Amino acid sequence: MQKHNFSAGPSILPKSVFEKASQAILDYNSKGLSLLEMSHRSDDFVQIMHNAQSLVKELLGLNENQKVLFLSGGASTAFYILALNLLKTKAAYVNTGTWSTKAIKEAKRIGHVDTLASSEDQGFNYIPEFEYVENCDYLHTTSNNTIYGTQYQNFKSYKSIHVCDMSSDIFSRTFNAQDFGLIYAGAQKNMGPAGTTLYIVNQEILGKTQRNLPSMLDLELQIQKNSMFNTPPVFPIYVSMLTLEWITSLGGVQQIEKINNQKSDLLYNEIDRNALLVGYAQKESRSKMNVTFNLTDKQLSEAFLEMCSSAGIVGIKGHRSVGGFRASIYNAMPIESVQVLVDVMQDFEKQYG
Amino acid sequence: MQKHNFSAGPSILPKSVFEKASQAILDYNSKGLSLLEMSHRSDDFVQIMHNAQSLVKELLGLNENQKVLFLSGGASTAFYILALNLLKTKAAYVNTGTWSTKAIKEAKRIGHVDTLASSEDQGFNYIPEFEYVENCDYLHTTSNNTIYGTQYQNFKSYKSIHVCDMSSDIFSRTFNAQDFGLIYAGAQKNMGPAGTTLYIVNQEILGKTQRNLPSMLDLELQIQKNSMFNTPPVFPIYVSMLTLEWITSLGGVQQIEKINNQKSDLLYNEIDRNALLVGYAQKESRSKMNVTFNLTDKQLSEAFLEMCSSAGIVGIKGHRSVGGFRASIYNAMPIESVQVLVDVMQDFEKQYG
Repeated sequence: MQKHNFSAGPSILPKSVFEKASQAILDYNSKGLSLLEMSHRSDDFVQIMHNAQSLVKELLGLNENQKVLFLSGGASTAFYILALNLLKTKAAYVNTGTWSTKAIKEAKRIGHVDTLASSEDQGFNYIPEFEYVENCDYLHTTSNNTIYGTQYQNFKSYKSIHVCDMSSDIFSRTFNAQDFGLIYAGAQKNMGPAGTTLYIVNQEILGKTQRNLPSMLDLELQIQKNSMFNTPPVFPIYVSMLTLEWITSLGGVQQIEKINNQKSDLLYNEIDRNALLVGYAQKESRSKMNVTFNLTDKQLSEAFLEMCSSAGIVGIKGHRSVGGFRASIYNAMPIESVQVLVDVMQDFEKQYG
Repeated sequence: MQKHNFSAGPSILPKSVFEKASQAILDYNSKGLSLLEMSHRSDDFVQIMHNAQSLVKELLGLNENQKVLFLSGGASTAFYILALNLLKTKAAYVNTGTWSTKAIKEAKRIGHVDTLASSEDQGFNYIPEFEYVENCDYLHTTSNNTIYGTQYQNFKSYKSIHVCDMSSDIFSRTFNAQDFGLIYAGAQKNMGPAGTTLYIVNQEILGKTQRNLPSMLDLELQIQKNSMFNTPPVFPIYVSMLTLEWITSLGGVQQIEKINNQKSDLLYNEIDRNALLVGYAQKESRSKMNVTFNLTDKQLSEAFLEMCSSAGIVGIKGHRSVGGFRASIYNAMPIESVQVLVDVMQDFEKQYG
């Protein structure tokens, strides 16, 4: 039976990407070697790294000052790295959920954190308004909150002062990437398998703390070494490159965004229509990547899960910290799979409504 | 043409491992999902992590206090992590090459480093004798020096004070793993693809610095979360598990060691016999993993490389920092491939001797 994978991350990637990745492990480009046994200093891998970086630049329209890195570790590592590289005295954070909270925690090890706004008062089910305060080293936001299903609908321009965790919505919609000082994103949602994190750094923001940085956490050094101070996570970077090629082949982020809008409209319309379902996030803060919802009668949870499972739907359970349900509909999720979920929701209403 | 991959890392892995890894990307265990799209909290991945850890424990005969972690980043990240977690005031290091030098550099950011001995005076071509000084927080050694082709032939017991970088020879020979406080090893030589580092931590050595550690660099927290504080590098860990299963299926480290001895004997005997070749490392310090050598007439380098290439041999060039040649003959390298190299060496002598 065909599976429909709504997991929040690691998560669905295009089938063609899986096929190419699988083949590269047996024999990369008919070289007689597996990609996994090739030196990271080989021409082949240097080319992979270059392609991956170029695709990011093209897809997001970066400027010359914005450098693209693929480093090891996840966004959790980035929380500390970014503060270590940028926080001199005071930074401004907006707290929109678990990941923002963790980012704040790591930054507090380095300097003072001013929390401009938080949506914790309502279980992080909305994106709060905030006023940016001057004289901060940077402003940190989390563009999409995977666990709660909220997302900034757009961003004001704060220029290079803006640092943003885009782990779960990068490459899913158009935005002005040049407005950011640092964008980072763990690969395992819209880009690739777990094991690498994309950093897009405007190099003008670096070098201001006078801090003596450990080599692997030093963004200036990583730029200088083009992400290859040490052996990088070769395979996760390769698969990310394949996904970026796939996005480009579809027509880029603008095209992907149209399809993502169709998918999220389809699902939210059903949630709003269906008497047995209720959305978790407030309407004006809804995420187009992670659709969170509850049943009006929680006692029917097992029955709903069973219907999902019978239809081949997996990964639909909400995060352990909030419960309920969550359908992650990243770039690689076909609209047909979203329709399967909508069909189950309608059958569920017919049977239990 | 069959390739014989002598690369120093990323490097050869067993063919059966490539085949299983390739299949898991298309469909993991007939689940209808790729391994790359599965949640790291799924039963399947929790089982993979558990298996990988258990195999390490069994293959090396660890005790109850020794915890096994698979973290992101490479040994270069470990250089800083280990000092951050263990260095209170003073640590003792033995400098046997590029990687030791880098480890010392990162440790000096944290505290005082006493370099007990160094082989830098002779281009790191030997393992120096040293006397351990009391009152250090730990003693750090590099068991095998990939670039220079030197290796400690055995270790004295320093008990839990001993921290060792075993990136390029772990699982290649028997040793008393219980004699170490911390063993770490980047996966991409004897264990798996680039992207994860194995840490074997005697938990009794932790918690002594009173330092407030960033979450991702905190070994106590990583033990508490069983390497899953955040999303771990799923695929590199899975492939490492497959390689550990392969070692176990061959009869464990003891059996592998016998084959490794045969392979290195075959190659060193030819280097010592062949009038056109000269070993780089001093005989009593020779590595059984990385065999470094030069031509007596360096002008023949291109000719030798061409003969290697014609025989399907790749990755034989020495590290850019030392030049010459290097044959890395890790666990997965079949003795037949070593024989192909020896044959080329003999043909080379016939043609140019």
